Amino acid sequence: MARSPFEWIDEQARARSRAGLVRTLRPRPADSELLDLAGNDYLGLARHPEVTEGAARAARTWGGGATGSRLVSGSTELHAELERELAEFCGFESALVFSSGYAANLAAVTALAPHGSLIVSDAGNHASLIDGCRLARGTTQVVAHADPDAVRKALDTRTGPAIVVSDTVFSVDGDAAPLTALAAACREAGEPGESGASRKSGESGRPGAALVLDDAHGLGVIGDGGRGAAWAAGLAGAPDVVATVTLSKSLGSQGGAVLGPAHVIDHLVNAARTFIFDTGLAPAAAGAALAALRLLREEPERAARARAVAISLYERLTAEGLEAVRPDAAVVSVRAPSPEQALRWAAECRAAGLAVGCFRPPSVPDGISRLRLTARADLTEGQLDRAVGVIIEARR
Amino acid sequence: MARSPFEWIDEQARARSRAGLVRTLRPRPADSELLDLAGNDYLGLARHPEVTEGAARAARTWGGGATGSRLVSGSTELHAELERELAEFCGFESALVFSSGYAANLAAVTALAPHGSLIVSDAGNHASLIDGCRLARGTTQVVAHADPDAVRKALDTRTGPAIVVSDTVFSVDGDAAPLTALAAACREAGEPGESGASRKSGESGRPGAALVLDDAHGLGVIGDGGRGAAWAAGLAGAPDVVATVTLSKSLGSQGGAVLGPAHVIDHLVNAARTFIFDTGLAPAAAGAALAALRLLREEPERAARARAVAISLYERLTAEGLEAVRPDAAVVSVRAPSPEQALRWAAECRAAGLAVGCFRPPSVPDGISRLRLTARADLTEGQLDRAVGVIIEARR
Repeated sequence: MARSPFEWIDEQARARSRAGLVRTLRPRPADSELLDLAGNDYLGLARHPEVTEGAARAARTWGGGATGSRLVSGSTELHAELERELAEFCGFESALVFSSGYAANLAAVTALAPHGSLIVSDAGNHASLIDGCRLARGTTQVVAHADPDAVRKALDTRTGPAIVVSDTVFSVDGDAAPLTALAAACREAGEPGESGASRKSGESGRPGAALVLDDAHGLGVIGDGGRGAAWAAGLAGAPDVVATVTLSKSLGSQGGAVLGPAHVIDHLVNAARTFIFDTGLAPAAAGAALAALRLLREEPERAARARAVAISLYERLTAEGLEAVRPDAAVVSVRAPSPEQALRWAAECRAAGLAVGCFRPPSVPDGISRLRLTARADLTEGQLDRAVGVIIEARR
Repeated sequence: MARSPFEWIDEQARARSRAGLVRTLRPRPADSELLDLAGNDYLGLARHPEVTEGAARAARTWGGGATGSRLVSGSTELHAELERELAEFCGFESALVFSSGYAANLAAVTALAPHGSLIVSDAGNHASLIDGCRLARGTTQVVAHADPDAVRKALDTRTGPAIVVSDTVFSVDGDAAPLTALAAACREAGEPGESGASRKSGESGRPGAALVLDDAHGLGVIGDGGRGAAWAAGLAGAPDVVATVTLSKSLGSQGGAVLGPAHVIDHLVNAARTFIFDTGLAPAAAGAALAALRLLREEPERAARARAVAISLYERLTAEGLEAVRPDAAVVSVRAPSPEQALRWAAECRAAGLAVGCFRPPSVPDGISRLRLTARADLTEGQLDRAVGVIIEARR
């Protein structure tokens, strides 16, 4: 009997099992009784009838799939409409829609960091940005979390184009990046031309670095009516700023997008492999996202409500003696004493009817285990009371 | 005025423009008059009412999006159902669904090629497999296209686990990989244990290499009723074979899947970053794919019809003196004399009401320009006549 080429997989599985780190899928029914504080449906739109009808109508009108890559047969007028409205809502010149936020991040980082360039990447960045750095031809320097001085130092070493890459809201702790200081660091990295020597305008000196922001957890929650973290920081539409967003969190659908100056978006159309070689986003996902975006425009108070629910959760849990990070958006991170206790705590919550996220090593880079709660704009006061009660009770 | 950090992008854009290689999006209306031989809707199911109703029903039942990653809130019973039926249809023990075929390929290659392993990759492989090789911790050796001897030689150099990675049907020319010979090369790379020394069963000798097949263009077209290229080659369900498929071609939806032994799929759940850190596939896409899969099971003749249409296209075009590759699935590749003539040829076809693909450098690795035609199971004889007539006429 021949030996299996996957023996090493079985060894890893045994090690995971011994460490209590086996992950298993738990498919949920359509009408779960659980109160959900685990998902990222921050505005409570995923099951809104206008969103699900947007999906259904798009499937009927355009088909179950886009049928090809965006440059062949996969661009519909629905994609173009979504791109126009997303760009306008977030305050950017142009937008390009992808089949996932992961694909959008791979595209932005790889296409904007050519051979000879420098990528400065925050140590707390999402896996998709990290994979973008690893795929890009440029060189990556990982810098300390949320540290503009470290970014400044890293930019000093560059010899070609440079981008600074950061989540706007970090997915594990829900803390915000120092966007204004990051933008300043990017711009200060440019050198003005010699005075009087600028006969060919813009040809002297050295350009600054570009800022690439992953606003997955900001869109719909942060900024005037949920227009995102770049808008809130006055950076939306700037010629040196690119943002990526997801359609799968606040917009209750699937997909991602890159937002930026039109010439940058044109560059992605020509150069980004996860755009060129991927099938276009399914019409139903585009239709759901467009419906959610229009709802958000009509009901801008949803964004503020999501933030208020997060702050309320934080205040009530810390008042009970729990250690948590003050939320800058809709993610509330509560410290757990150990991986085992985090797991047990989350399981107790589930047994009491409350779904919460549980982040443990190795998926958290700092080794700290936590419960991850997500606020939703549509949570009632009664549901909040119940959630807080269950979390406190389950800790005992 | 500060210089733009994206000046280098404008230089690249000017170079592309001079070379006539600018790509632009052309959003299509819902009811285009064009006869489509460009998309990958091989079975004509993307707009089948059962498929679009499958999408609509899923959105209404489950929501516009999956709301979270598959390990948190993004696994529904619909995902589990699709995974069960896909695995069963294709003859594999287990399946795992992703938000795209691109993500499925990144997952399979990176999770199955750890540090110290060898990846042997066909020179004609799809961009997503190439990016998987670049992201993986293992070392990649690119070997000549469809050359099992080259694979054998590459495997001789390995010192740890090894995988051989290949498209089953190559997307540019539509030619099939030599699967039986590749599987033999993988298995021959194993060494039997010393005779008599096998007291601990399976512990002596060296394991063979695993075979990882991207069946994006095979599922729905090749094999008994469209069960795929691995099924057709007698490799489905083998302990050393993993296949990836897409839901966005024959199944008329969006998404991808990895098929393989259950312990390999469990490993992906625990180790594949594009699974763990991505939002689950939208319910509408899962619902559309499931409806298409059931249609294919009920109407297995669709697969044979797609292949027959491709052969008919090939025979009629070559009878008119065109140079083409005999199709092994539904993709028919027709040689063009130059990039410029390929572009003009495709534009003339479009002006005459026929959409065809046009592949030119730099997206073709061999520098050969071609028209890429896709057969569809639902093309009528009249549409085939019209397509052949337009292609011949447009060449003049």
